[in-house]
Amino acid sequence: MYSKEIRELLEKKGVEVGNKVKVTKNEETYEGILMPRIEMGDPNSLIIKLENGYNIGLEFDDMVKIKKLGEGPKLGIVPELRVKREKKLPDVSMIATGGTIGTHVDYKTGGVYMCRSPEQILSTAPEIGTIIDLKNTFRPFTLASEDLTYNEWKKMARLIANELNSGCHGVIVTHGTDILHYSAAAMSFMLRNLTKPVAFVGAQRSPDRGSFDGSMNLICASHFTGYSDVGEVCLVMHGSSNDDHCLVHRGTRVRKFHTSRRDAFQSVNEKPLMKVWKNGKMEKVGVKYEKFDDRKVEVDDKWEPKVALIKAAPNSDPSIINWYIDKKYKGLVLEGFGLGHVPTSTLKKEDSWLPMIKKAIEEGISVVMTSQTIFGRVHPYVYRNLRMVSELGTIYAEDMLTEVTLVKLSWVLGHTKEKEKVKEMMLTSYAHEITPRTPLDSTVKTIE
Amino acid sequence: MYSKEIRELLEKKGVEVGNKVKVTKNEETYEGILMPRIEMGDPNSLIIKLENGYNIGLEFDDMVKIKKLGEGPKLGIVPELRVKREKKLPDVSMIATGGTIGTHVDYKTGGVYMCRSPEQILSTAPEIGTIIDLKNTFRPFTLASEDLTYNEWKKMARLIANELNSGCHGVIVTHGTDILHYSAAAMSFMLRNLTKPVAFVGAQRSPDRGSFDGSMNLICASHFTGYSDVGEVCLVMHGSSNDDHCLVHRGTRVRKFHTSRRDAFQSVNEKPLMKVWKNGKMEKVGVKYEKFDDRKVEVDDKWEPKVALIKAAPNSDPSIINWYIDKKYKGLVLEGFGLGHVPTSTLKKEDSWLPMIKKAIEEGISVVMTSQTIFGRVHPYVYRNLRMVSELGTIYAEDMLTEVTLVKLSWVLGHTKEKEKVKEMMLTSYAHEITPRTPLDSTVKTIE
Repeated sequence: MYSKEIRELLEKKGVEVGNKVKVTKNEETYEGILMPRIEMGDPNSLIIKLENGYNIGLEFDDMVKIKKLGEGPKLGIVPELRVKREKKLPDVSMIATGGTIGTHVDYKTGGVYMCRSPEQILSTAPEIGTIIDLKNTFRPFTLASEDLTYNEWKKMARLIANELNSGCHGVIVTHGTDILHYSAAAMSFMLRNLTKPVAFVGAQRSPDRGSFDGSMNLICASHFTGYSDVGEVCLVMHGSSNDDHCLVHRGTRVRKFHTSRRDAFQSVNEKPLMKVWKNGKMEKVGVKYEKFDDRKVEVDDKWEPKVALIKAAPNSDPSIINWYIDKKYKGLVLEGFGLGHVPTSTLKKEDSWLPMIKKAIEEGISVVMTSQTIFGRVHPYVYRNLRMVSELGTIYAEDMLTEVTLVKLSWVLGHTKEKEKVKEMMLTSYAHEITPRTPLDSTVKTIE
Repeated sequence: MYSKEIRELLEKKGVEVGNKVKVTKNEETYEGILMPRIEMGDPNSLIIKLENGYNIGLEFDDMVKIKKLGEGPKLGIVPELRVKREKKLPDVSMIATGGTIGTHVDYKTGGVYMCRSPEQILSTAPEIGTIIDLKNTFRPFTLASEDLTYNEWKKMARLIANELNSGCHGVIVTHGTDILHYSAAAMSFMLRNLTKPVAFVGAQRSPDRGSFDGSMNLICASHFTGYSDVGEVCLVMHGSSNDDHCLVHRGTRVRKFHTSRRDAFQSVNEKPLMKVWKNGKMEKVGVKYEKFDDRKVEVDDKWEPKVALIKAAPNSDPSIINWYIDKKYKGLVLEGFGLGHVPTSTLKKEDSWLPMIKKAIEEGISVVMTSQTIFGRVHPYVYRNLRMVSELGTIYAEDMLTEVTLVKLSWVLGHTKEKEKVKEMMLTSYAHEITPRTPLDSTVKTIE
């Protein structure tokens, strides 16, 4: 709610949130829609959505004058994108799954609803109609990303494959940002023989905010899916906190690093594949990727749901593993420290994870080690403590992200439970999720 | 082991690893100690430790000549630092706890032992004797950092306090890097009324490697503990992958971000306090900190060990919380997604974490939410799903790191189990672990 002072002026002038207004402060005049107070924003700043789509905040004081010009857009009805196709553009289909990018704010109540159809989402970026031809749009479900499970991933994979196999150049998936990277990883494994671009797109700010990032992400994703020569699952999200370019991150090499920044996503252990600008310019950085080809993609959505993640911590009780054994789990990802450590002291046997890891493996559970450092590569041999964990049969996940390892382990265990085969598949790079180990000698050839 | 070609030449010339040698290749000549092959390094590169302490790698070929100059240093005996004190320097004490910085490599076997005394550790950086006077040295235990628990933290806190209260200007703690940040956070809470610098120092590379980072970290930590005006627990570690400067990170604002890089530590949601160079130059960056004062520090090591960390993931089963309830846990840190989400769908009740969080709180467990994004701040109100979690009584940990939150919750629950008091203490900043919320209006005052 706006401050008492603002509310009094609005009442006096008969202006309501949502009206078209003219606001004057000092010498400057602004025309636009009076927006509700921005969440957590200054209650004493008037927010006006200008015709060009930008929001502006005006600090309120005695000098501010406001006048109602009209009722404003009809509330509760979200505009839809309707584009007259003038020439044939690349066909791209879009799947809307929910999340902030698909929210709709009711200016009257300030409430946020997760209800937008793909056409409504696209209305925030009408120029998309001049970049691609939207072949088909889907809304298979509408969920905040944190509520997605592998059941949604299976639906998603089949929809994407259907579209790509019926002639689309690419597919855009709009999605909440919280587990955007988990979903992109899942699609990277489920879509086999993929040779077309699939772009996951989200928004960190809601469409009622001037800082809404979804429009540019969608525009860049349209360029990417319509025109790039990439044949992989990628994330297309802001590359800086400015509205100037997006980064295309490989779906298996990226995670969310900030709760609220628009450039929250960052590639790990690898550069992003390219930068994309709103005008369609794409700048590659030299990372090798699968090339575009018009081939049939296949869905391989075999999945073992009994897979869990355990993040180790000092003082953590390893007997938590018993719970997973009792529940008949098939796979455990241990997010350890540094090169892949968990407490293993032979001096302090009561705290050691070794007996519990041994027991899990004897019960047929696949145990995979990653690192909470996020960056870098786990290694099973550098220290004695690592060797002890490794010798029990723990699979060290090279330089894979924990999130990707978790998704991959479910997918691998959907195919086989055979110990050696699980290890072989976990250490095979199916979607560029592992960088081959590079010899360290390049760092010792010169005097350091 | 070196390549067959190298071993043949060494045998022919009667040279053993550890000997003093002269090596010639093309026009260049090097004298030093023949080192064992670097772990994972090129087996066909000869490694020579030069007199200046640097290691050099020489690619082996027909042009390489080697000559034994002498037996080399007596093996198995690690040199100790013995410094003649010429003038009175600031008193600093040192506590060696184990970890890579304290390892000793036997050149004969290549084995790595965790056995160095503080004096042996200091021998890798003899110039420390010209910077500070080492008042006392301790080796209370020798453990890889992943094996430390709160029992060691209590010992550490008492030792540090004793030294500071008997006139030291500061204390250096050498420590494994894996949980260096957890330990620094624990000391930040346990040492109350701290007004002197405490520097945690580790090494990412072992002392047998040319890239050993422990020497510079120790030198910079000596400057910092001997001369800075900081009265806080800090980490002093490489600031880049060059041997040029260290960063001083606040103990509650830092985590390890890389498995192997020397600049693996990075401050989160705050800048480091300062840069320190080997020559003693300290560059502050404007972050406010507690100032040095000669006051008595108090140990407050009350601790509740029944505190655990759960990292949420898509498809994760919330009934894991039952295990912690059964085990009489008192505190749970949930590392959620984004702004502090866990699966909460009302459409998919079977996957929702809400009933289990409710049950835990009803059982008297304090539940605290952090984010796996690491950067940014959790927020209990932005979305309906967040409000539902918050309204159950979940404490949203502001912009605290998960690792710090975990340590702090154990410390807080050591003081009180009373629900409102726990919340109040968790949201109080005791060691600058929370940044006060800043209004977002600064970002909406201009057209975005």
